[in-house]
Amino acid sequence: MIIIKVPATTANIGPGYDSQGMALKLYNVFKFTEEKSSIEENNLIYKSFKYFYTRNNISVPEVKIEVNGDVPLSRGLGSSATCIVAGLMAANEMSKLKLDKKEILKYATEIEGHPDNVAPAIYGGHITSIVNEDVFFSRREVSDNYKFYLLIPDFELQTKVAREVVKTEVKLSDAVSNIARATLVSDALSSGDFKLLKGAAKDLLHEPYRKKLISDYPIFEKICKLNSAVMFISGAGPSLLVIAEKENSKIEQALKNSGEKKAVWKALKLEVSNEGATIL
Amino acid sequence: MIIIKVPATTANIGPGYDSQGMALKLYNVFKFTEEKSSIEENNLIYKSFKYFYTRNNISVPEVKIEVNGDVPLSRGLGSSATCIVAGLMAANEMSKLKLDKKEILKYATEIEGHPDNVAPAIYGGHITSIVNEDVFFSRREVSDNYKFYLLIPDFELQTKVAREVVKTEVKLSDAVSNIARATLVSDALSSGDFKLLKGAAKDLLHEPYRKKLISDYPIFEKICKLNSAVMFISGAGPSLLVIAEKENSKIEQALKNSGEKKAVWKALKLEVSNEGATIL
Repeated sequence: MIIIKVPATTANIGPGYDSQGMALKLYNVFKFTEEKSSIEENNLIYKSFKYFYTRNNISVPEVKIEVNGDVPLSRGLGSSATCIVAGLMAANEMSKLKLDKKEILKYATEIEGHPDNVAPAIYGGHITSIVNEDVFFSRREVSDNYKFYLLIPDFELQTKVAREVVKTEVKLSDAVSNIARATLVSDALSSGDFKLLKGAAKDLLHEPYRKKLISDYPIFEKICKLNSAVMFISGAGPSLLVIAEKENSKIEQALKNSGEKKAVWKALKLEVSNEGATIL
Repeated sequence: MIIIKVPATTANIGPGYDSQGMALKLYNVFKFTEEKSSIEENNLIYKSFKYFYTRNNISVPEVKIEVNGDVPLSRGLGSSATCIVAGLMAANEMSKLKLDKKEILKYATEIEGHPDNVAPAIYGGHITSIVNEDVFFSRREVSDNYKFYLLIPDFELQTKVAREVVKTEVKLSDAVSNIARATLVSDALSSGDFKLLKGAAKDLLHEPYRKKLISDYPIFEKICKLNSAVMFISGAGPSLLVIAEKENSKIEQALKNSGEKKAVWKALKLEVSNEGATIL
């Protein structure tokens, strides 16, 4: 029996659109048992499990999969990535092939299409990545000068819909703004320089369009502005990621006091997971 | 008498278009003497010197300026930035105002229009920067795992011309590629991971257009490819920046053997200047 814990991930982080992601201490736990079971062929965990075997020309064993966890579906928190990573890592264990994490990342990227969520889900911390034949990435740990909140609504947003609103042609000046800010956000997250994070925290390529799909966005934007916090849309949304300095004593209450929205939005205080996916 | 040494800077560094720059140990040296002289009003050094006084509402003293140095003009090596930084720093000394470097950077950015060259010229090392009311930047030292060559041709390229060939609307996918790669190049420069640098070293926003203005570009591109080096257009060109691993024993000779081009191109081996502008 193999038990694997895989963290939720928040991708984009504003200007790091389609290239950055960070693992959070919010987990799905997967149990794989080598026994006969009735499993749907298009279950993403099983598909990923099977992918590993097929990719290595080994026959797929019988497997029973159980999932328990706190990562909600279709909220921009990388729930699919947890399934892919769990399926691959379980197969890696069960097959005794013991390939290294780099190979798991490669397979996971082949399945997911991009490494933004699967890379931090596997390695933990904050990761910038690109696919250029191979997957290239840089992993950095996040400073403990910050605290993080996830605002998770009770409604879903399909990534497909959130992708469609983004423009496929952009202004060069907007691209340049994101290029500079993405690096600065990455540097600020690892150095703990909140002033830099705040100065760099502005995306011009996806958030201006996606925020229109999240009707309460302006409420939380205002709360963050008034309480020295920065806010990003987590992945394709609709969850929101709020980052404040550790010593900020106002933001938590302000988020929790968001009036009539309390029934719709849950505010979770979370830490960054520097470990990534773990076999228990 | 004030003597100031200001380093050349190489901006962009491929995907870090209009946002990254690095200081190199190639200097202009400026001597400022408080005496009457005939100086042109539109001399950039004097304009910057004067700017400092005007900005602080102090009357401008008489000054004589002498320049000596190795930073060639209009080659994409930040020669204008050396003039601006020298003028401001000399005024800062002469006026006894002794503002800190952050203020000098602010003034220099006001004069130059962007901080890409002036920031590393002032602080040294590798800098990513953005103007958002204030100038925000992140400075990192460059790993000593690398060696750098500047290929400097005997012809000039006006920044204005090099700016005009760049498209003002770009594909989102190209922007995303640069966003990821800019951060990875910055991380690879500081970590010394040459494999990552190589994987990330590709610009899609300016080099595809500007390289057409540099007729020998393909020759050096091929030399770099065959000898495990990466190449970027320095600033707006026409100089080229070549980066290889310190232990690379082939690249230097390969660059110097570039046949009939030897009369046109000079290959300079340089180190990164981590000190930036210095008052001697």
